[in-house]
Amino acid sequence: MKKATGNSDIVWRETPCETDEKRIKDIVVSSGFFSEDECEIAVELVQERLQKGISSGYHFLFVEEKEQMKGYACFGPIPGTKGSFDLYWIAVENSFRGFGLGLKIMEKVENKIAEFKGRQIYVETSSKEQYQPTRSFYEKCGYKKAAELSDFYSPGDNKIIYVKNI
Amino acid sequence: MKKATGNSDIVWRETPCETDEKRIKDIVVSSGFFSEDECEIAVELVQERLQKGISSGYHFLFVEEKEQMKGYACFGPIPGTKGSFDLYWIAVENSFRGFGLGLKIMEKVENKIAEFKGRQIYVETSSKEQYQPTRSFYEKCGYKKAAELSDFYSPGDNKIIYVKNI
Repeated sequence: MKKATGNSDIVWRETPCETDEKRIKDIVVSSGFFSEDECEIAVELVQERLQKGISSGYHFLFVEEKEQMKGYACFGPIPGTKGSFDLYWIAVENSFRGFGLGLKIMEKVENKIAEFKGRQIYVETSSKEQYQPTRSFYEKCGYKKAAELSDFYSPGDNKIIYVKNI
Repeated sequence: MKKATGNSDIVWRETPCETDEKRIKDIVVSSGFFSEDECEIAVELVQERLQKGISSGYHFLFVEEKEQMKGYACFGPIPGTKGSFDLYWIAVENSFRGFGLGLKIMEKVENKIAEFKGRQIYVETSSKEQYQPTRSFYEKCGYKKAAELSDFYSPGDNKIIYVKNI
Protein backbone atom coordinates (compact mmCIF):
# COMPACT_ATOMS: atom_id res chain seq x y z
CA MET A 1 0.00 0.00 0.00
CA LYS A 2 1.25 3.44 -0.90
CA LYS A 3 2.20 5.77 1.88
CA ALA A 4 -0.05 8.82 1.90
CA THR A 5 1.68 12.18 1.74
CA GLY A 6 0.88 13.95 5.00
CA ASN A 7 -0.56 17.45 4.82
CA SER A 8 2.18 18.62 7.17
CA ASP A 9 4.88 18.00 4.58
CA ILE A 10 3.19 20.04 1.88
CA VAL A 11 3.93 23.66 1.03
CA TRP A 12 1.74 25.66 -1.35
CA ARG A 13 3.08 28.45 -3.54
CA GLU A 14 1.36 30.71 -6.09
CA THR A 15 4.08 32.92 -7.53
CA PRO A 16 6.15 31.31 -10.28
CA CYS A 17 9.93 31.68 -10.42
CA GLU A 18 12.51 31.08 -13.18
CA THR A 19 13.38 27.55 -12.03
CA ASP A 20 9.74 26.47 -12.41
CA GLU A 21 10.13 26.28 -16.21
CA LYS A 22 12.41 23.26 -16.11
CA ARG A 23 10.54 21.54 -13.27
CA ILE A 24 7.17 22.00 -15.00
CA LYS A 25 8.63 20.41 -18.12
CA ASP A 26 9.98 17.48 -16.07
CA ILE A 27 6.61 16.96 -14.39
CA VAL A 28 4.50 17.04 -17.56
CA VAL A 29 7.00 14.84 -19.42
CA SER A 30 7.11 12.39 -16.47
CA SER A 31 3.35 11.90 -16.61
CA GLY A 32 3.66 10.37 -20.08
CA PHE A 33 0.26 11.85 -20.99
CA PHE A 34 1.34 14.74 -23.13
CA SER A 35 2.85 15.12 -26.58
CA GLU A 36 6.06 17.08 -27.07
CA ASP A 37 4.02 20.01 -28.43
CA GLU A 38 1.77 19.96 -25.37
CA CYS A 39 4.77 19.93 -23.02
CA GLU A 40 6.11 22.98 -24.85
CA ILE A 41 2.76 24.75 -24.32
CA ALA A 42 2.93 23.98 -20.57
CA VAL A 43 6.32 25.71 -20.40
CA GLU A 44 5.14 28.63 -22.54
CA LEU A 45 2.33 29.40 -20.08
CA VAL A 46 4.76 29.84 -17.17
CA GLN A 47 7.12 31.85 -19.41
CA GLU A 48 4.28 34.18 -20.35
CA ARG A 49 3.32 34.56 -16.69
CA LEU A 50 6.95 35.37 -15.77
CA GLN A 51 7.11 37.98 -18.54
CA LYS A 52 3.72 39.64 -18.16
CA GLY A 53 2.82 38.96 -14.55
CA ILE A 54 -0.79 38.44 -13.55
CA SER A 55 -2.01 40.35 -16.64
CA SER A 56 -1.03 37.21 -18.59
CA GLY A 57 -4.24 35.70 -17.21
CA TYR A 58 -2.35 32.61 -16.02
CA HIS A 59 -2.62 31.76 -12.35
CA PHE A 60 -0.48 29.02 -10.86
CA LEU A 61 -0.61 26.81 -7.85
CA PHE A 62 2.45 24.76 -6.97
CA VAL A 63 2.68 22.06 -4.36
CA GLU A 64 6.09 21.36 -2.92
CA GLU A 65 7.52 18.80 -0.59
CA LYS A 66 11.04 19.18 0.76
CA GLU A 67 11.46 22.27 -1.42
CA GLN A 68 10.78 20.35 -4.62
CA MET A 69 7.70 20.88 -6.76
CA LYS A 70 5.65 17.67 -6.91
CA GLY A 71 2.68 18.96 -8.81
CA TYR A 72 1.01 22.10 -10.09
CA ALA A 73 -2.02 23.60 -11.73
CA CYS A 74 -2.43 26.49 -14.16
CA PHE A 75 -5.79 28.19 -14.50
CA GLY A 76 -7.30 31.55 -15.38
CA PRO A 77 -10.40 33.54 -16.24
CA ILE A 78 -11.71 33.00 -19.78
CA PRO A 79 -11.55 36.37 -21.59
CA GLY A 80 -14.96 37.70 -22.57
CA THR A 81 -16.81 35.78 -19.86
CA LYS A 82 -18.12 36.75 -16.46
CA GLY A 83 -16.99 34.08 -14.02
CA SER A 84 -15.93 31.23 -16.32
CA PHE A 85 -12.45 29.82 -15.76
CA ASP A 86 -10.26 27.40 -17.67
CA LEU A 87 -8.14 24.85 -15.87
CA TYR A 88 -5.30 24.71 -18.40
CA TRP A 89 -3.08 22.20 -16.62
CA ILE A 90 -3.05 19.98 -13.62
CA ALA A 91 -0.18 17.53 -13.26
CA VAL A 92 1.58 15.54 -10.58
CA GLU A 93 5.12 14.20 -10.87
CA ASN A 94 4.76 10.58 -11.93
CA SER A 95 6.42 8.98 -8.88
CA PHE A 96 4.03 10.96 -6.64
CA ARG A 97 0.82 9.90 -8.36
CA GLY A 98 -1.62 7.79 -6.35
CA PHE A 99 -1.24 9.72 -3.09
CA GLY A 100 -4.27 11.94 -3.62
CA LEU A 101 -2.14 14.97 -4.42
CA GLY A 102 -4.12 15.72 -7.60
CA LEU A 103 -7.35 15.89 -5.59
CA LYS A 104 -5.73 18.28 -3.12
CA ILE A 105 -4.49 20.54 -5.93
CA MET A 106 -7.95 20.50 -7.55
CA GLU A 107 -9.64 21.43 -4.27
CA LYS A 108 -7.24 24.33 -3.74
CA VAL A 109 -7.73 25.52 -7.35
CA GLU A 110 -11.50 25.49 -6.91
CA ASN A 111 -11.21 27.50 -3.69
CA LYS A 112 -9.01 30.07 -5.43
CA ILE A 113 -11.43 30.35 -8.36
CA ALA A 114 -14.32 30.78 -5.92
CA GLU A 115 -12.36 33.64 -4.28
CA PHE A 116 -12.11 35.24 -7.76
CA LYS A 117 -15.95 35.00 -8.01
CA GLY A 118 -15.72 32.21 -10.56
CA ARG A 119 -18.96 30.37 -11.36
CA GLN A 120 -17.76 27.67 -13.70
CA ILE A 121 -14.55 25.74 -14.31
CA TYR A 122 -13.89 24.18 -17.69
CA VAL A 123 -11.36 21.49 -18.42
CA GLU A 124 -10.69 19.68 -21.66
CA THR A 125 -9.22 16.33 -22.51
CA SER A 126 -9.03 13.75 -25.23
CA SER A 127 -11.42 10.86 -25.86
CA LYS A 128 -8.50 8.47 -26.44
CA GLU A 129 -8.10 5.36 -24.32
CA GLN A 130 -4.83 6.61 -22.79
CA TYR A 131 -6.72 9.53 -21.20
CA GLN A 132 -9.18 7.29 -19.33
CA PRO A 133 -7.37 7.99 -16.00
CA THR A 134 -7.61 11.75 -16.73
CA ARG A 135 -11.34 11.53 -17.46
CA SER A 136 -11.92 9.39 -14.35
CA PHE A 137 -10.02 11.94 -12.27
CA TYR A 138 -12.19 14.83 -13.49
CA GLU A 139 -15.36 12.81 -12.93
CA LYS A 140 -14.21 11.92 -9.40
CA CYS A 141 -13.69 15.67 -8.82
CA GLY A 142 -17.33 16.32 -9.79
CA TYR A 143 -16.82 17.51 -13.37
CA LYS A 144 -19.63 16.71 -15.83
CA LYS A 145 -19.20 16.17 -19.56
CA ALA A 146 -20.60 19.25 -21.31
CA ALA A 147 -19.60 18.54 -24.90
CA GLU A 148 -17.66 16.22 -27.19
CA LEU A 149 -16.16 17.60 -30.40
CA SER A 150 -15.58 14.83 -32.94
CA ASP A 151 -12.13 14.54 -34.52
CA PHE A 152 -11.01 17.77 -32.86
CA TYR A 153 -7.40 16.80 -32.05
CA SER A 154 -7.02 14.53 -35.06
CA PRO A 155 -9.26 12.06 -36.92
CA GLY A 156 -10.69 9.70 -34.29
CA ASP A 157 -9.44 11.82 -31.38
CA ASN A 158 -12.30 13.86 -29.94
CA LYS A 159 -12.13 16.73 -27.48
CA ILE A 160 -14.23 16.26 -24.36
CA ILE A 161 -15.18 19.40 -22.44
CA TYR A 162 -15.97 19.00 -18.75
CA VAL A 163 -17.52 21.65 -16.54
CA LYS A 164 -18.04 22.09 -12.83
CA ASN A 165 -20.36 24.73 -11.42
CA ILE A 166 -18.99 26.14 -8.19
CA MET B 1 -33.04 46.81 -53.33
CA LYS B 2 -29.43 47.00 -52.26
CA LYS B 3 -26.82 47.31 -54.93
CA ALA B 4 -24.53 44.30 -54.91
CA THR B 5 -20.83 45.00 -54.58
CA GLY B 6 -19.21 43.83 -57.79
CA ASN B 7 -16.28 41.43 -57.58
CA SER B 8 -14.29 43.77 -59.81
CA ASP B 9 -14.21 46.45 -57.10
CA ILE B 10 -12.88 44.15 -54.41
CA VAL B 11 -9.23 43.77 -53.41
CA TRP B 12 -8.06 41.01 -51.06
CA ARG B 13 -5.11 41.41 -48.74
CA GLU B 14 -3.54 39.02 -46.21
CA THR B 15 -0.68 40.93 -44.59
CA PRO B 16 -1.73 43.30 -41.81
CA CYS B 17 -0.29 46.81 -41.49
CA GLU B 18 -0.22 49.35 -38.66
CA THR B 19 -3.30 51.26 -39.86
CA ASP B 20 -5.40 48.09 -39.66
CA GLU B 21 -5.62 48.39 -35.88
CA LYS B 22 -7.85 51.45 -35.96
CA ARG B 23 -9.91 50.27 -38.93
CA ILE B 24 -10.53 46.85 -37.32
CA LYS B 25 -11.75 48.61 -34.19
CA ASP B 26 -14.07 50.83 -36.28
CA ILE B 27 -15.48 47.80 -38.10
CA VAL B 28 -16.15 45.66 -35.03
CA VAL B 29 -17.61 48.64 -33.14
CA SER B 30 -19.80 49.55 -36.16
CA SER B 31 -21.37 46.09 -36.18
CA GLY B 32 -22.87 46.73 -32.74
CA PHE B 33 -22.49 43.02 -31.95
CA PHE B 34 -19.49 43.14 -29.67
CA SER B 35 -18.82 44.38 -26.15
CA GLU B 36 -16.03 46.86 -25.47
CA ASP B 37 -13.87 44.02 -24.11
CA GLU B 38 -14.46 41.97 -27.25
CA CYS B 39 -13.53 44.91 -29.49
CA GLU B 40 -10.28 45.26 -27.52
CA ILE B 41 -9.56 41.56 -28.13
CA ALA B 42 -10.09 42.05 -31.89
CA VAL B 43 -7.46 44.79 -31.87
CA GLU B 44 -5.08 42.74 -29.70
CA LEU B 45 -5.06 39.91 -32.24
CA VAL B 46 -3.83 42.17 -35.04
CA GLN B 47 -1.31 43.79 -32.64
CA GLU B 48 0.06 40.35 -31.75
CA ARG B 49 0.28 39.45 -35.43
CA LEU B 50 2.14 42.71 -36.18
CA GLN B 51 4.59 42.01 -33.33
CA LYS B 52 5.20 38.29 -33.80
CA GLY B 53 4.41 37.75 -37.45
CA ILE B 54 2.91 34.48 -38.62
CA SER B 55 4.26 32.66 -35.52
CA SER B 56 1.46 34.45 -33.62
CA GLY B 57 -0.85 31.86 -35.18
CA TYR B 58 -3.19 34.61 -36.38
CA HIS B 59 -3.95 34.71 -40.07
CA PHE B 60 -5.88 37.59 -41.56
CA LEU B 61 -7.91 38.22 -44.63
CA PHE B 62 -8.93 41.77 -45.46
CA VAL B 63 -11.35 42.87 -48.14
CA GLU B 64 -10.97 46.39 -49.46
CA GLU B 65 -12.91 48.57 -51.81
CA LYS B 66 -11.47 51.87 -53.00
CA GLU B 67 -8.49 51.29 -50.72
CA GLN B 68 -10.64 51.10 -47.60
CA MET B 69 -11.13 47.94 -45.56
CA LYS B 70 -14.79 46.91 -45.59
CA GLY B 71 -14.48 43.63 -43.77
CA TYR B 72 -12.03 41.08 -42.48
CA ALA B 73 -11.54 37.70 -40.91
CA CYS B 74 -8.99 36.39 -38.43
CA PHE B 75 -8.36 32.65 -38.16
CA GLY B 76 -5.64 30.22 -37.24
CA PRO B 77 -4.67 26.64 -36.46
CA ILE B 78 -5.71 25.44 -32.99
CA PRO B 79 -2.51 24.55 -31.08
CA GLY B 80 -2.27 20.86 -30.20
CA THR B 81 -4.55 19.75 -33.04
CA LYS B 82 -3.86 18.30 -36.47
CA GLY B 83 -5.99 20.24 -38.92
CA SER B 84 -8.49 22.04 -36.66
CA PHE B 85 -8.80 25.78 -37.13
CA ASP B 86 -10.55 28.52 -35.20
CA LEU B 87 -12.30 31.35 -37.00
CA TYR B 88 -11.70 34.04 -34.37
CA TRP B 89 -13.38 36.94 -36.11
CA ILE B 90 -15.38 37.72 -39.18
CA ALA B 91 -16.87 41.18 -39.49
CA VAL B 92 -18.15 43.52 -42.16
CA GLU B 93 -18.43 47.29 -41.76
CA ASN B 94 -22.03 47.99 -40.84
CA SER B 95 -22.94 50.13 -43.86
CA PHE B 96 -21.65 47.33 -46.13
CA ARG B 97 -23.67 44.52 -44.59
CA GLY B 98 -26.31 42.87 -46.76
CA PHE B 99 -24.22 42.77 -49.96
CA GLY B 100 -22.99 39.21 -49.46
CA LEU B 101 -19.52 40.33 -48.46
CA GLY B 102 -19.53 38.11 -45.36
CA LEU B 103 -20.20 35.04 -47.50
CA LYS B 104 -17.35 35.98 -49.83
CA ILE B 105 -14.96 36.40 -46.90
CA MET B 106 -16.06 33.06 -45.43
CA GLU B 107 -15.54 31.27 -48.76
CA LYS B 108 -12.05 32.73 -49.09
CA VAL B 109 -11.19 31.81 -45.46
CA GLU B 110 -12.31 28.23 -46.07
CA ASN B 111 -10.18 28.03 -49.20
CA LYS B 112 -7.15 29.33 -47.30
CA ILE B 113 -7.70 26.82 -44.47
CA ALA B 114 -8.03 24.02 -47.01
CA GLU B 115 -4.67 25.12 -48.48
CA PHE B 116 -3.20 24.77 -44.96
CA LYS B 117 -4.55 21.17 -44.86
CA GLY B 118 -7.26 22.11 -42.38
CA ARG B 119 -9.99 19.53 -41.79
CA GLN B 120 -12.33 21.40 -39.47
CA ILE B 121 -13.26 25.01 -38.79
CA TYR B 122 -14.67 25.99 -35.42
CA VAL B 123 -16.55 29.17 -34.68
CA GLU B 124 -18.21 30.25 -31.46
CA THR B 125 -21.01 32.61 -30.66
CA SER B 126 -23.54 33.48 -28.01
CA SER B 127 -27.03 32.02 -27.57
CA LYS B 128 -28.48 35.48 -26.95
CA GLU B 129 -31.25 36.85 -29.15
CA GLN B 130 -29.05 39.65 -30.52
CA TYR B 131 -26.74 37.04 -32.08
CA GLN B 132 -29.52 35.41 -34.11
CA PRO B 133 -28.19 37.03 -37.34
CA THR B 134 -24.70 35.68 -36.51
CA ARG B 135 -26.02 32.15 -35.94
CA SER B 136 -28.11 32.31 -39.13
CA PHE B 137 -25.04 33.44 -41.05
CA TYR B 138 -22.96 30.49 -39.85
CA GLU B 139 -25.79 28.07 -40.59
CA LYS B 140 -26.15 29.53 -44.08
CA CYS B 141 -22.41 28.95 -44.55
CA GLY B 142 -22.88 25.24 -43.69
CA TYR B 143 -21.73 25.28 -40.07
CA LYS B 144 -23.40 22.76 -37.74
CA LYS B 145 -23.96 23.21 -34.03
CA ALA B 146 -21.50 20.92 -32.23
CA ALA B 147 -22.04 21.98 -28.62
CA GLU B 148 -23.76 24.45 -26.34
CA LEU B 149 -22.14 25.37 -23.02
CA SER B 150 -24.73 26.68 -20.54
CA ASP B 151 -24.07 30.01 -18.82
CA PHE B 152 -20.59 30.18 -20.36
CA TYR B 153 -20.42 33.93 -21.05
CA SER B 154 -22.61 34.88 -18.08
CA PRO B 155 -25.69 33.41 -16.39
CA GLY B 156 -28.27 32.80 -19.15
CA ASP B 157 -25.75 33.47 -21.94
CA ASN B 158 -24.57 30.17 -23.44
CA LYS B 159 -21.67 29.56 -25.80
CA ILE B 160 -22.62 27.78 -29.01
CA ILE B 161 -19.83 26.02 -30.87
CA TYR B 162 -20.29 25.49 -34.60
CA VAL B 163 -18.12 23.31 -36.80
CA LYS B 164 -17.69 22.78 -40.51
CA ASN B 165 -15.78 19.85 -41.94
CA ILE B 166 -13.94 20.83 -45.09
